[in-house]
Amino acid sequence: MQDTYQTLILPDVQLMLQEGDTAGLAAFCTVVHPASVAEILEELEDDQIWPILDQAEISVRVEVFEYMSRRRQMTLVEQLDSVRLSELLEWMSADDRVDLLSRMPQDRCEDVLRLIARAERNDIRKLLSYDEGSAGAIMTTEYASLPANISVREALDKLRLQAPNSETIYYVYILSEDRRLEGFISLRELILAKPDARLSAIMQRDVIRFKVTDQRESVAQELGRYNFIALPIVDADNRLVGIVTHDDAMDVVQEEATEDAYLQSAVAPLDDTYEDTPLITILWKRGIWLLFLSIVALMNARVIGYYRLSTSDVPQVVEQKVGLATLILLFLPLVMASGGNAGSQSATLFIRMFALQPADSKGAINRLIDRRLIIREFTIGLALGVALASLDFGVAWIFFGLSVPEAAAIATTVIVVVVLGTSAGTLLPLGLRRSGMDPAIMSNPLIAAMIDILAVVIFYEVAWGFLS
Amino acid sequence: MQDTYQTLILPDVQLMLQEGDTAGLAAFCTVVHPASVAEILEELEDDQIWPILDQAEISVRVEVFEYMSRRRQMTLVEQLDSVRLSELLEWMSADDRVDLLSRMPQDRCEDVLRLIARAERNDIRKLLSYDEGSAGAIMTTEYASLPANISVREALDKLRLQAPNSETIYYVYILSEDRRLEGFISLRELILAKPDARLSAIMQRDVIRFKVTDQRESVAQELGRYNFIALPIVDADNRLVGIVTHDDAMDVVQEEATEDAYLQSAVAPLDDTYEDTPLITILWKRGIWLLFLSIVALMNARVIGYYRLSTSDVPQVVEQKVGLATLILLFLPLVMASGGNAGSQSATLFIRMFALQPADSKGAINRLIDRRLIIREFTIGLALGVALASLDFGVAWIFFGLSVPEAAAIATTVIVVVVLGTSAGTLLPLGLRRSGMDPAIMSNPLIAAMIDILAVVIFYEVAWGFLS
Repeated sequence: MQDTYQTLILPDVQLMLQEGDTAGLAAFCTVVHPASVAEILEELEDDQIWPILDQAEISVRVEVFEYMSRRRQMTLVEQLDSVRLSELLEWMSADDRVDLLSRMPQDRCEDVLRLIARAERNDIRKLLSYDEGSAGAIMTTEYASLPANISVREALDKLRLQAPNSETIYYVYILSEDRRLEGFISLRELILAKPDARLSAIMQRDVIRFKVTDQRESVAQELGRYNFIALPIVDADNRLVGIVTHDDAMDVVQEEATEDAYLQSAVAPLDDTYEDTPLITILWKRGIWLLFLSIVALMNARVIGYYRLSTSDVPQVVEQKVGLATLILLFLPLVMASGGNAGSQSATLFIRMFALQPADSKGAINRLIDRRLIIREFTIGLALGVALASLDFGVAWIFFGLSVPEAAAIATTVIVVVVLGTSAGTLLPLGLRRSGMDPAIMSNPLIAAMIDILAVVIFYEVAWGFLS
Repeated sequence: MQDTYQTLILPDVQLMLQEGDTAGLAAFCTVVHPASVAEILEELEDDQIWPILDQAEISVRVEVFEYMSRRRQMTLVEQLDSVRLSELLEWMSADDRVDLLSRMPQDRCEDVLRLIARAERNDIRKLLSYDEGSAGAIMTTEYASLPANISVREALDKLRLQAPNSETIYYVYILSEDRRLEGFISLRELILAKPDARLSAIMQRDVIRFKVTDQRESVAQELGRYNFIALPIVDADNRLVGIVTHDDAMDVVQEEATEDAYLQSAVAPLDDTYEDTPLITILWKRGIWLLFLSIVALMNARVIGYYRLSTSDVPQVVEQKVGLATLILLFLPLVMASGGNAGSQSATLFIRMFALQPADSKGAINRLIDRRLIIREFTIGLALGVALASLDFGVAWIFFGLSVPEAAAIATTVIVVVVLGTSAGTLLPLGLRRSGMDPAIMSNPLIAAMIDILAVVIFYEVAWGFLS
């Protein structure tokens, strides 16, 4: 629906641009939702965008700019001199501004910061200093706050003044004189309260809060769990320093899901969307993993080589070894796939489970759950292994005409490999998580590569046992 | 932080329960945030929960209940008679209520519906009728709405009356007499507007809206993109029938990410969280895929068998074939892993890209992007193939002491297989999406299994060419 709308407007905009219809362009920027304007502008050339946006008021211009992709923002910023850039930055929301500055070359960033008012500059520097994965890096400093000792009527008057500079006025934080977080009240509650009531009497004192240094995922998960519009972020002394809003939390959830999906498929995480990432970066982020996985696979060739014929083998052993090699060659792909796939399933189930659970929960309860889950996964691995082995035994015996010991060798190997696969897919992510690392780095291909090596050893040893 | 809190309170609650301290339990339910109460109750036995919740007012009781896991909700519901259940349902929010009813046995559902007031019952039946993946299934009917011809002052008075029954009053929809959606105004704008202004003069008329039948992902993506708190859902006649709020959108995003991750790793999507899903269901959802993938791998064994020694081979061919088989056995895992991993990377990049893009965008612009992306992926596949092949050639020649034609056969195969892998990982999800199917069903293991078969054929043919 939105899309037809967009394809309809684009030619009009291009025509207005050609004819220099500044009034028309100004109207386009003002009437259409900024996110839609941004989407339409994305289809234009880099040098066509400012001529359009410049027709609109600075507030609209900035809002549209904030909706554009990061890659496009960077190109647009390069076209501005420091004065215009500083104007843009002053109008941008605190969190988007810091995001943009952190991507700019150091010297350009310093140049433009010098042109910004000192109070705001200090604010920017502080936000820039927070660690990328922390709550501090995604929060905005534009929150609404009130003292506790005023009436609801006064509160609403003050809020009207704060509204233009606040990301949201639906949640209001009650601060002491030294900016410590004392309570919280929603605009809904303010509207429903008696105009003469004191905020101190109606505010909620048990406020869920996070520290600037807390992980951004934890904040996003909690925000989603409690259905909040925003969560307050405090410093070590419980002073309110910012808020994380629901839209930022949604971005975090999407970014984390993308990062996990990439890692799971052995792609190093990208800073931008796939489309916006340069070819060479993608090559590197994929290539480095593929090379590493190839090295593991080459080690596997060494392992297979270990079981090769040797010149010292007596004729009977030679014959056995050739028979063995044929069996292995035929069914190694099956055995490896069974173990690797079962392992990938377990790893994915656990990594998504972690993604949906608050990262802070590492208490005694969780340790108990871990043990229960490990036992359950082991049971599942065993059951799946037996099911697959039955199929494989039947097919190998009936359709491939193998002897019973040969078919049994395949079946036994599949059971062992599937159990090992699910165990690795369970224990490795759990262990990584417990040691504070990202469980998703244990990618499915890496688990598969390790299982591949084990599969070779087990297949040879089991088959050797069954056939001799 | 929240977690220590929880582990501290749990023993107190258990003690209060033992001692029958109803006042203490009532205080616990009322003072602690409902989501935290729910989390603490999750640690208790099924039969301990109602005795605690019954101490609290029905509004608190219902709120806590709504925060509990679906599995626990189902067990708790079983403990209630129809009268108590209908009371619970009447207090629940419209969307959670429908979610619960849709999971209950048909006859129980009918039994309890009979006890609910007719107007509300019809509302429930209507919501129950929407398709599971549609906007209608995640929306709530508890929105705030106003007519256009009243003043801001009157609007605020009316909103106060609607507040207790609205999921959010921060967004207010302006409806005509026959409930058609005419405009939109936020509470922030209402607070800032002059008390005497007419809503018709200050409302936004260009409202982004979705149909009840639209896909829930599209709604969630748009809501995230525009940073809205809620989006209005209309029927075919543009009558407002519900709203989707930011927290529901967040749930959809998480559920879709989980579903994609599962599908990508060849696990059929689960209805509940991994922990809440019965063992037998998990076995089935994983086993069915593993069995299918095993059948593909068994077909591969047939393909390898095709290249086996035949009794009619002349001695020279026998010697060549044995040499070939040894080479293939050693390096087949490497070749298969290279193709499968490169393919998984491409598929994951595309599937995540689709997850972040509005699903409706299927216009001319997108078709252009598709072509550009296909060419780009092909280039990437070629570059990655050459890089991996160089490594493989060097290692095979130097460390494994293979002849140049043998090493060249491996390298050539790797290039071809990697290019085929990236092509399959690109074209299959793109094609599935274009034909309206979920691209994530083309799971990484499935792509790998298909590439495995191609890898065998290509490896044999290339090696045969190089060595004879």
